[in-house]
Amino acid sequence: MATRFIFLSFCLLFSSTLTISNAKIFPTFPSSRITPEKLSSLISNSKDSQGLYKTKYHTQILDHFNYNPQSYQTFQQRYLINDTHWGGSKNNAPIFVYTGNEGDIEWFAQNTGFMYDVAPKFKALLVFIEHRYYGKSIPYGGNKEIAYKNASTTGYLSSTQALADYASLIIDLKKNLTATDSPVVVFGVLAAWFRLKYPHVAIGALASSAPILNFDNIVSPYSFSNIITQDFRSVSENCYKVIKGSWKQIEETAKKPGGLEKLQKAFRICKSEKNLAIESWLSTAFVYTAMTDYPTPSNFLNPLPAFPVKEMCKAIDDPKTGNDVFAKLYGAASVYYNYSGTAKCFDLNGDSDPHGLSEWGWQACTEMIMLTGGDNKDSIFEESEEDYDARARYCKEAYGVDPRPNWITTEFGGHKIGLVLKRFASNIIFFNGLRDPWSGGGVLKNISKTVLALVEKEGAHHVDLRFSTKEDPQWLKDVRRREVEIVGKWISQYFQDLAQ
Amino acid sequence: MATRFIFLSFCLLFSSTLTISNAKIFPTFPSSRITPEKLSSLISNSKDSQGLYKTKYHTQILDHFNYNPQSYQTFQQRYLINDTHWGGSKNNAPIFVYTGNEGDIEWFAQNTGFMYDVAPKFKALLVFIEHRYYGKSIPYGGNKEIAYKNASTTGYLSSTQALADYASLIIDLKKNLTATDSPVVVFGVLAAWFRLKYPHVAIGALASSAPILNFDNIVSPYSFSNIITQDFRSVSENCYKVIKGSWKQIEETAKKPGGLEKLQKAFRICKSEKNLAIESWLSTAFVYTAMTDYPTPSNFLNPLPAFPVKEMCKAIDDPKTGNDVFAKLYGAASVYYNYSGTAKCFDLNGDSDPHGLSEWGWQACTEMIMLTGGDNKDSIFEESEEDYDARARYCKEAYGVDPRPNWITTEFGGHKIGLVLKRFASNIIFFNGLRDPWSGGGVLKNISKTVLALVEKEGAHHVDLRFSTKEDPQWLKDVRRREVEIVGKWISQYFQDLAQ
Repeated sequence: MATRFIFLSFCLLFSSTLTISNAKIFPTFPSSRITPEKLSSLISNSKDSQGLYKTKYHTQILDHFNYNPQSYQTFQQRYLINDTHWGGSKNNAPIFVYTGNEGDIEWFAQNTGFMYDVAPKFKALLVFIEHRYYGKSIPYGGNKEIAYKNASTTGYLSSTQALADYASLIIDLKKNLTATDSPVVVFGVLAAWFRLKYPHVAIGALASSAPILNFDNIVSPYSFSNIITQDFRSVSENCYKVIKGSWKQIEETAKKPGGLEKLQKAFRICKSEKNLAIESWLSTAFVYTAMTDYPTPSNFLNPLPAFPVKEMCKAIDDPKTGNDVFAKLYGAASVYYNYSGTAKCFDLNGDSDPHGLSEWGWQACTEMIMLTGGDNKDSIFEESEEDYDARARYCKEAYGVDPRPNWITTEFGGHKIGLVLKRFASNIIFFNGLRDPWSGGGVLKNISKTVLALVEKEGAHHVDLRFSTKEDPQWLKDVRRREVEIVGKWISQYFQDLAQ
Repeated sequence: MATRFIFLSFCLLFSSTLTISNAKIFPTFPSSRITPEKLSSLISNSKDSQGLYKTKYHTQILDHFNYNPQSYQTFQQRYLINDTHWGGSKNNAPIFVYTGNEGDIEWFAQNTGFMYDVAPKFKALLVFIEHRYYGKSIPYGGNKEIAYKNASTTGYLSSTQALADYASLIIDLKKNLTATDSPVVVFGVLAAWFRLKYPHVAIGALASSAPILNFDNIVSPYSFSNIITQDFRSVSENCYKVIKGSWKQIEETAKKPGGLEKLQKAFRICKSEKNLAIESWLSTAFVYTAMTDYPTPSNFLNPLPAFPVKEMCKAIDDPKTGNDVFAKLYGAASVYYNYSGTAKCFDLNGDSDPHGLSEWGWQACTEMIMLTGGDNKDSIFEESEEDYDARARYCKEAYGVDPRPNWITTEFGGHKIGLVLKRFASNIIFFNGLRDPWSGGGVLKNISKTVLALVEKEGAHHVDLRFSTKEDPQWLKDVRRREVEIVGKWISQYFQDLAQ
C-alpha cells in the first residue's frame, strides 16, 4: 500500500488525502469533502439559521505584523452574533466568542450548540467569528480565485494572523457595544492559543479537542492511527482484523486483469477510473467515523447513527456476508457515506474542489505540520512510516512553499507544556474525548488549578460543544456541567477583581 | 513656540524631533543623534569589546507570520555571546538573553554591565541579540539603502517580528548547544512583552524602564514632560523658572532683525542657518539629561557627570551669568553637549542621518505611537497639546504609512494591566526609576507575587542594568541585590519543576 498522508483539519472539515505511490505524488480528495452546496444543505437541514444568529461583517486588516503597503489592505470578515440572552453592557454581561476553526463559520455555529445551551444561564452574548480565507471571509474583495491563486495572495493565511483578527475584532466590537468591561470567554480548537497570546482580550478558554501537541514530534506519529485502531478493536477484534487484512487484498485485486472493474462493482463506484482510490475512500470513512463516534445520532459531516463505529463493525461482522471482505467493507463504508440510504452509487471524486487545497491544504503545507501519518504493525491501516520529506516535496510542488515544521512550537510552545504552563497562564480547559484520534495530541493531564484537562474515555471529537439532546449519556452531561461550573468561576472571579 | 513632538526611543537611542510650525511639518534631528562613527568611538572608549563578547550571526527569516515568497527571505541577525562563566549544557546552566532594543547591540551590551556582573554567580551564558533593522542586523543582504528605501522594504520592521526573531534564535541556539533544558531569563525593555508572548522560551523577564503603558491614552500624554519638569524643579525652582521662561525669549529674539545672529553667537552655533532649531537642540539636552540623571559619571549618549540635572541647574543658577538667560542656557546645554570641553562650537545638524528616520522614526510612525508630547501649564517646556493628527499627517508624508495607534494594546494589552496579569503570567520584574520621564508609562505597582514592580525614587533610565561602580549609592545596590534574589528564585523553582 502506498504511504498514507492525510492532511486532516482539526475540525475534520476540509481534508485532502495525499497518496504517494512509486515516488509519484498525487493528491486525492476524499468524497466526504464538503462542497458549498453540500454545506448549505447541511445547514438548512439542521437548525434554522435565521433563529440562531445574525450575520455581520468586520473590516479586517490583511497583515497585522507588517507595515508594507499591501499589509494595509482590508477584507470583510464574517461573524455571527446572537444577543437573545445577553444581559447588556450596563451589567458587563459576558461575551462568549467562538474563535472559528478553519472552515465555514455557519457550520461551526450550527454544531456548537453548547454555547446556545448555556447562554441563558450566563446572560451571554454569542459571537462566532470566521477564520480568514474560509467561508465568506475571503481577502481580495471576497474573490477566491485571487485569494487562492498563489503563495503571494494566500500567504496571509496563517494561525497568528487569524488570532490577531480575533483580537482586533473583539476589541472593536466591545468598543462599539460600549462593553469594554464585559468578560470574554473563548471556545473552539484555537481558543487555548488565543488565551495564551491574548489574555487581555479573553479571561478564559474552553479548548475542545485541540491537538496542540501534534507538532514537532512532541507525541508519536503513530498516536493518531493507534487511537482509530483501538476504537474499532475495542468494539470487535474480528472487525479490526477484517479491515486490517483488506488493504493487501484491495491492492492485489487492483493489479489483476479485470480487478478494477471488480472493485468498482463491489463498492458501487459510479464511474470507472484509472486510479481507483478505494483505499483512501475507505480510510477516510474509518478516520472520520472514529472522530465522530458520538453516542447520539449526528449530522456533522454526514448523517450518522449513534455509535457509528459499532454500526460499521456490525456490518463487517454480519454473518450474512460470509467471507466476502469487499461486501463487508462496502457495508461499513455505507454507514458513513450512505446512512440515509439514498445514494445508488458513489462518486469518488465527485466532491473534489480545486480550492480545497488552498484552504486547509495550504495550512498543512506551511505551518500546520501535524505528523499523524505513521502506522505501526498493529495499525488498522497498513504499516507505514510518516514521511516528512515526501510531504515537503509535495508542498513545494503544489504550492511552491517550504513547510516550517518548527514554527508552531516556536510560536505557541508545546514541548514540556506542563512545566511551562504550571508557572504561567490560567483559565484554560482542555477537553478531550479518548475515542477521538486527535486526542493523542491533546493535553490530557491537569497542569495547575486553573489549567485543567477534562478527559472522557467515551468522548469523540468536539462532543462536549454539541447541542445537548435527551439521549445524552450521563458522562456527557457531567462533562458539560463541569465546564459550566468552571467558566462560571472564571466569570465570578473576574467580577470580584473588577470591583476591587 | 511650535508644537513639540519628540519621537523618543525607549532606550534614548535614535530620536528624531519633529517640529510643527505654521502647519508646516519638518523633522529635525537633535545633534545628540548617534552616528556610526560616534558610536564606534563610544564603544571603543568604554570597555574592551574583545573581552566582553564574541560576535555571531544567525540566519533569520524575514517574515514569521506570512508565507508569501518574500517572507521566506532571510537576513543575518547579529548576536553577541559570552560563555566565560557558563556552567555548560550538562548542568543545564542558565542563559541570560538581552532582547535587544531598537539600536546597535554592541552599545547595549556595553551599557548592560549588570548581566556581566551577575553572570559568575549564576554561571550564566550571556547572549545579546540585535533588533532587526538596527546595527548590523539589516535585511536585504545588509544593504541599508534597500532596507530603508520605502514601506515595501521597511515594512518588516515591527515589534512582533522582532520578538519572533528572538524566540527563533534562542530555540535554535539552545538546540545547537544541546542546552534545551537550560532556563532562559530575558533582560531589557522588550523583555516583558517577550515573556508574555513566549513563556515557553523564557522563564522570566527583567524589564527595565519599559514604558509599556505609554500607548493608547492609558497614561496621560503630560506624564513625560511632567517628570522632566519635576526633575529640574526638585533641584532648583529658579532653574526651572529660567528654562520655562526662556522659550518665549528665544522665539521673540529669532523674529527680530539680527536675532538669529544673536542666537547663533549666544549658543556658539558653528553655521548660520535659516531655521535655527535652538529650541529643539535645548529640549533634547533637557530630555536626555533627565533620562540619564545617574548618580555616577556615565558615558551613554554623551559623557556626563554624576547627577547631570543638578550640574545643569548649577550653570543656570550661577550668579556670574546675572540676568543673561542665554548664557545660563548655554552653560546648561554645555553640560550635556560638551562636558569634555573639547567642542569649540556646535553643529545643530551635524549628526543628522537620513537613515535615522527609517529606524526608530519608522516605528514611531507605524506602531510605537507613544503620546508623550503634551505639556501642561506647569511644564518646563511651553504649554502645548499632543497632536495625533499632525503626527499621522507627518507619517503619511514621510513614509507613506498610516499609524496603527491601537495595535500595541491590541497585541500586548496595557489597559487594566493589573486586572489581566494578576490572573495570568508570572516571573516579571518591572524596574522603574522615577526620575526617568518614561517611568510615567511604567508598571509601578506589584501586580502579583511574581509580577513585581521595583520602583526607585532616585533612579533614572535603565540605571539598574548598568555596570556597578564603587560610587553606586546604597539604593542602587539594594535594587540590584533584589533583582538577583528574584531571578535566583525563578531559576531554583525551574530546576525544582524540571526534577519532578
